[in-house]
Amino acid sequence: MSKLTMDKLVALCKNRGIIFPGSEIYGGFANTWDFGPVGVELKNNVKKAWWKRFVQEDNSCYGVDAAILMNPRVWEASGHIQSFGDPKMDCKNCKTRHRADTIIENFSKGTVSAEGMTNEEMEKYIAEHDIKCPNCGKRDWTSIRKFNPMFITSRGTLEEDADKVYLRPETCQGEYVNFLNVQRTMRAKIPFAIAQIGKSFRNEITPGNFLFRTIEFEQMELQMFCKEEDSMNIYNNYKEKALKFVKDLNVKEENLRFHDHDKLAHYAKAACDIQYNFPIGWQELNGIHHRSTWDLSRHQEYSGKNLQYTDPFTNEKYTPNVIEYSIGADRLTLLLLCEAYDEQQLEDGETRVVMHFHPAIAPYKVAVMPLIKKLHGEKAEEILTILNKEFMTQYDESGSIGKRYRRQDEIGTPYCVTIDDDTINNGTVTIRDRDTMQQITLKVEELVEYIKEKIKFI
Amino acid sequence: MSKLTMDKLVALCKNRGIIFPGSEIYGGFANTWDFGPVGVELKNNVKKAWWKRFVQEDNSCYGVDAAILMNPRVWEASGHIQSFGDPKMDCKNCKTRHRADTIIENFSKGTVSAEGMTNEEMEKYIAEHDIKCPNCGKRDWTSIRKFNPMFITSRGTLEEDADKVYLRPETCQGEYVNFLNVQRTMRAKIPFAIAQIGKSFRNEITPGNFLFRTIEFEQMELQMFCKEEDSMNIYNNYKEKALKFVKDLNVKEENLRFHDHDKLAHYAKAACDIQYNFPIGWQELNGIHHRSTWDLSRHQEYSGKNLQYTDPFTNEKYTPNVIEYSIGADRLTLLLLCEAYDEQQLEDGETRVVMHFHPAIAPYKVAVMPLIKKLHGEKAEEILTILNKEFMTQYDESGSIGKRYRRQDEIGTPYCVTIDDDTINNGTVTIRDRDTMQQITLKVEELVEYIKEKIKFI
Repeated sequence: MSKLTMDKLVALCKNRGIIFPGSEIYGGFANTWDFGPVGVELKNNVKKAWWKRFVQEDNSCYGVDAAILMNPRVWEASGHIQSFGDPKMDCKNCKTRHRADTIIENFSKGTVSAEGMTNEEMEKYIAEHDIKCPNCGKRDWTSIRKFNPMFITSRGTLEEDADKVYLRPETCQGEYVNFLNVQRTMRAKIPFAIAQIGKSFRNEITPGNFLFRTIEFEQMELQMFCKEEDSMNIYNNYKEKALKFVKDLNVKEENLRFHDHDKLAHYAKAACDIQYNFPIGWQELNGIHHRSTWDLSRHQEYSGKNLQYTDPFTNEKYTPNVIEYSIGADRLTLLLLCEAYDEQQLEDGETRVVMHFHPAIAPYKVAVMPLIKKLHGEKAEEILTILNKEFMTQYDESGSIGKRYRRQDEIGTPYCVTIDDDTINNGTVTIRDRDTMQQITLKVEELVEYIKEKIKFI
Repeated sequence: MSKLTMDKLVALCKNRGIIFPGSEIYGGFANTWDFGPVGVELKNNVKKAWWKRFVQEDNSCYGVDAAILMNPRVWEASGHIQSFGDPKMDCKNCKTRHRADTIIENFSKGTVSAEGMTNEEMEKYIAEHDIKCPNCGKRDWTSIRKFNPMFITSRGTLEEDADKVYLRPETCQGEYVNFLNVQRTMRAKIPFAIAQIGKSFRNEITPGNFLFRTIEFEQMELQMFCKEEDSMNIYNNYKEKALKFVKDLNVKEENLRFHDHDKLAHYAKAACDIQYNFPIGWQELNGIHHRSTWDLSRHQEYSGKNLQYTDPFTNEKYTPNVIEYSIGADRLTLLLLCEAYDEQQLEDGETRVVMHFHPAIAPYKVAVMPLIKKLHGEKAEEILTILNKEFMTQYDESGSIGKRYRRQDEIGTPYCVTIDDDTINNGTVTIRDRDTMQQITLKVEELVEYIKEKIKFI
């Protein structure tokens, strides 16, 4: 197949109801995207699969859903007000603004990570490699400064009494501030985790590369609270679990790799990304971070509340270590779109575009198609109402069956059910598999169980 | 049972991991709440039930998930920048701020709706009924002014080039701006609906009454696009569907009522709430509104894009009418908490608190309990790993079985499975029903199907 580019993927998503540019009729709104009817199901299925794997199936993990707007003191404790920010520089020639780390990573095609670099090291690298402005091609950079990407709003009811409030730039603070609430009400014993799926916001200046980097994005993450002596084991376990999760969604191992960080934040004991071979090169999919006792200690200091854990057997009191595993729901959705995309040359010379989604995350599970609308439409609608009680179901009665199969292939529907004379006379349907294009015959009453079995995420 | 008060419900929610005050360790953050491990499942189940009923089972309804941050022109078109706002007045004596409409509605115990009143009419009503400040008891009000509750932030990368951006105060604009995108990519024929679940934000000044009114809240809503001649029928249908949905979640009809609006926005043709008998009185649960062609016309005017629909059979071009059905996920969650709450006097003189949630929205579906940890713990964990592949499952091995049942009753778990000698010897378990407290014996391999059948939302 011809190489998948981001442009090609964006076009498919726009034309197949997967993802539209945000506020498109107003000329869009930079780095925002709206999920269409197909995309919203895809992303919801991604979230459900993650929650099932990491919360539902793990009885030592507890979910929360914390408010986006938090007491501003949270961001003092977390350090975001003081020292959060992206290294930014302007091109003096064309007056555009850029992230220095992204400029370096793009230049090196992902082989160099600027994450641990100081501003001086980045300036040096850019000078030594003569990296030019991607907009105008000149090298005439300002020095690098920090830019705080938190969105600021205000809570007050009158402008004069307004208090600054921040849109959270990360969800994990919702777990830290609720550490004791969850521990107490769930009678949780360490090690235990708190997980959350929710939106975060960053005032990004970098071109987004579709869903890769957006100003609002949904995080799926968990914070595992543990004893220091168990922490490295747990860290390594989550590396493996995180990789297995993506592989179980039918992502090929050759497109995934670990990227251990050389340079760490001063409090961190270990950090690792899983990277994916996106059309824009190897880039971070998710992070696993050993954050030591940093987060709970800071909140203890700033809130004045005792956030220590008391071991119920030994009565030992201590501040737990935290292992963080965080993955972007939008970025994983982008990854799965890239991974699923396929163009196949058929025997008749035609090309079919097909999205090989894992059935569990496929937006629609099944499409119902009357062979001839006039003859089989009524029966097909009857079967539709059986199936849409159980699954997201498409209904398509227009065009040739071949054309209808192609439409479903492009949105990755794993099964197409054709209703014809045999359905009316014998109560059977043909069910066609998206990937093999093979068809089998089933009784109508076997359909639901057949599909249920196939779409499981185990 | 003794009357359920909001305070009692808040206390139960805090103590059972259902809902915590937002940013609690920092003294909270007014009118924000964090869903705990139990509450997040409850609310997610509420959202799933709504989506299943109104999107999955209706093939003329298409979901979207639009960005929270939209092009600011959207809010010019919608009228929110110019004329959105709550009628607000200050108490000159104690310097507190209040919503005039809420003051009137509380005073009249919900029998008077201030929704259609002008500022002058509200001032007159307050004077005539001598309504005093609920904070200090004096009547010394300022005149009523509009207060725009939109949260404002800015998108620019430098303060000097910042553009004003708004946190959406309602989700439905995401449907309007995507009307053509959805229609085109889904080849949708009128009448069809676009639905969305997502967060909205309002800088509320009114005391929130727990989840009833919060500064961020999640809306579940759909916009049905239709021909004018069908619009009143569709409006009436959605009234019935909306009511049926709540009743199907086991809400008693006597606690629900329609409230048709007398006074309408100038563009509206009809409007109705469904109200519920909350502990704070009869209050709005959801709205059904006939919005005529207002929304699409405004967006057509402000965007300069042709948003007309072309009938595929007659080629007639027209701007569709819109019927809106909107319900708050948080408010419905609050309602279901209120409705589920029960205190029962048992034969042994004890009182049990039990949440009679519909099994489909119960946070946990089943709890696994080894009768004696030492003897049955291993077998119980084996059964846990079968069940938690399918359901949110609790595991409890501490205290008497009676005590463990009480814990599950308080979070509304419909089924408790006890593992004992019979499980080890005969492969059977007892399963206890939350509502009837009756127990039956089942084979282990029958458990999953038994529970699946019981927790369906049809």
